[in-house]
Amino acid sequence: MEKIEGGVTAAKGFLATATAAEIKYKNRDDMALVYSEVPAKVAGVFTRNAVKAAPVKWDMNIVTKEEVAQAVVLNSGIANAGTGSEGDKVNEAMAQQVADALQIPLSSVLTASTGVIGVQIPVDRAQKGIADMAGNLSDSLEAGNRAAKAIMTTDTICKECAIEFTIQDTTVTIGGMSKGSGMIHPDMATMLCVITTDIAISKELLQEAVKADVKDSFNMISVDRDTSTNDSMIVLANGKAGNVEITTKGQEYDSFCEALAMVTKTLAKMMAGDGEGATKLLEAKVINAKSKEDAIVLSKSVITSNLVKTAVYGSDANWGRILCALGYAGVEFNPDIVDIYIESEEKRIKLCENGLATDYSEEEATKILSAKEVTVIADMKDGKASATAWGCDLTYDYVKINGDYRS
Amino acid sequence: MEKIEGGVTAAKGFLATATAAEIKYKNRDDMALVYSEVPAKVAGVFTRNAVKAAPVKWDMNIVTKEEVAQAVVLNSGIANAGTGSEGDKVNEAMAQQVADALQIPLSSVLTASTGVIGVQIPVDRAQKGIADMAGNLSDSLEAGNRAAKAIMTTDTICKECAIEFTIQDTTVTIGGMSKGSGMIHPDMATMLCVITTDIAISKELLQEAVKADVKDSFNMISVDRDTSTNDSMIVLANGKAGNVEITTKGQEYDSFCEALAMVTKTLAKMMAGDGEGATKLLEAKVINAKSKEDAIVLSKSVITSNLVKTAVYGSDANWGRILCALGYAGVEFNPDIVDIYIESEEKRIKLCENGLATDYSEEEATKILSAKEVTVIADMKDGKASATAWGCDLTYDYVKINGDYRS
Repeated sequence: MEKIEGGVTAAKGFLATATAAEIKYKNRDDMALVYSEVPAKVAGVFTRNAVKAAPVKWDMNIVTKEEVAQAVVLNSGIANAGTGSEGDKVNEAMAQQVADALQIPLSSVLTASTGVIGVQIPVDRAQKGIADMAGNLSDSLEAGNRAAKAIMTTDTICKECAIEFTIQDTTVTIGGMSKGSGMIHPDMATMLCVITTDIAISKELLQEAVKADVKDSFNMISVDRDTSTNDSMIVLANGKAGNVEITTKGQEYDSFCEALAMVTKTLAKMMAGDGEGATKLLEAKVINAKSKEDAIVLSKSVITSNLVKTAVYGSDANWGRILCALGYAGVEFNPDIVDIYIESEEKRIKLCENGLATDYSEEEATKILSAKEVTVIADMKDGKASATAWGCDLTYDYVKINGDYRS
Repeated sequence: MEKIEGGVTAAKGFLATATAAEIKYKNRDDMALVYSEVPAKVAGVFTRNAVKAAPVKWDMNIVTKEEVAQAVVLNSGIANAGTGSEGDKVNEAMAQQVADALQIPLSSVLTASTGVIGVQIPVDRAQKGIADMAGNLSDSLEAGNRAAKAIMTTDTICKECAIEFTIQDTTVTIGGMSKGSGMIHPDMATMLCVITTDIAISKELLQEAVKADVKDSFNMISVDRDTSTNDSMIVLANGKAGNVEITTKGQEYDSFCEALAMVTKTLAKMMAGDGEGATKLLEAKVINAKSKEDAIVLSKSVITSNLVKTAVYGSDANWGRILCALGYAGVEFNPDIVDIYIESEEKRIKLCENGLATDYSEEEATKILSAKEVTVIADMKDGKASATAWGCDLTYDYVKINGDYRS
């Protein structure tokens, strides 16, 4: 199992492209299309925000009812959320045009949008963009990369990942792209993410694997505790690798889940580290908690605390704020036995033992916290469960970006 | 019922003072003492953070077991949280010294601390401060004001409020002080708040009134969603007004509750508007919700959203973020019938009707959002319940203050 170059076009039989449709941005790609040469088993998870974007409602229906899908059309700039029935119509028109251009059923076309809420997508521009893209699909890694770039909004890095592994002496590939930098606090899914794989697997097992996977990947990241209206993770599995279809759980299914986790956790961490205005990735590991549920809630409480996030920005070993964030998570525990560590790639030090300050060196602590990736470990000494969550620091630039995002 | 000048010394029989004890700050008052000439009925509500500061544990015990109390000693600079049994000892030593100096029982002395977590209070300095203060108590408004200033940390304005009203042809006064600017997301209480009143009321009714009150006042504000380890609201009622003690509910109890609410809501709004780095008070009114519980959760979701807070900072009428924050609050509702308004003292405009943008003027909207106090109204059209929550904008200065608070 190893990481390879590429994203959504890494797996066999997947093509992609992008175009500058001027949906909202000028002089950059803002639409992308991902296509499987053959019908692919489709799975997906979507936002649990009560306010759902038009493409989210569209995709949820397809994932629930359809065995297979073959294309995903995406745009950045406008989210097609808070757009009512007119937004639904625009979304369907976009899907219909993809279906016509690629000669596939309408029910095989998924959609995804990201950007400002409450504004209609100019359907004529979107349709012109789709017409451009339909004739320009390619299975090159560059095409996948171009698609990944086209869906960026306030993202500063392009998020792609691909993994290769072997089952039945067959090489299988999973590749993915995602975007997300603000309004990131996924609940059952993330801001746009498309994963393509050439594995042959049943629809049921694919959906089960995806649902289980997000709990430890995208649902464990947060930039700003704002769960988006558009979170979508779509997985297409087209069977082109040539393995015998996986229809029962076992070692092969486990290998697939492991590879999927490598892709999704990599993308999730890239999103957290590229949070709006972020200068650092903040990882919170809660260990020896009473239950998995507790560990999840505690670790997310640490990475979402504005006070922890600003302390990390200032490279300040303010463990009191970490203990405080654990304390208000809503989980019962004994603060008098908690140990807190910070860790960078090179070093780990204990800041707090049994709820009290150790005699750690502030200088060393500041050095650890100055790294690009900082890990906080909370040892609850109360059980055997653990969880890891990822966030980022809170900086001037977060305020800057969001104080005038629309304009 | 009217607002009058003053704070904790406004009601009859209450004295206060402050001193510069150098607990952590230099060249400013950092300890305060509030004293009732006679034993006063005592009530209080405290943080629900699992990590509780030493003074919080101390006070919870007194409020539960004792009918009366007579003094509150407070300090800023160090929170006495995350300080273990040593912190408990320091806290008790401070209370003991107040009891000795004022010749009152130890069980009549409440304590409150605010500041950095995980550091011990230098007990010798605290005791010297208490010795200074015990001989310097005064019932002047200036003394109350000095106490209110002494407990400030990152606060930029001093928070006092007093109300006068009449029952049984007797003038009754309620006065209070509070502090709080960061780590403000009170859960059953707020960062330090002391309220004094000369009303005669039973301990049971006083506690009941306080518990009910915080649900609509301090529990409805948030600066940063970080529930402190030290939140304490302490109420002392010494009976000096001379009314016949209130022992049953009825018109007099209701008058007291109404006056109490005027004090606590005023202080709560002052805290929200003076949130760390804040330039504006943000008020979120949710109306016509299905239940009071729903209205509370929805309104708090709006004022705690970093994306709403930064939009308010940027005077950007980004109603999509408001709708989004309502959506992820965890309450079921139909987004397609929601109306959203913004309002300042002078004007109200509708940004969103039935989930869709109106043709509002961006210029007008920006003008409203540029006011010092901005109100967002979400009409759920789904019932009859309403709630109001108060927060503030998220600014560069919040990041600045918390990126290097400890140093």
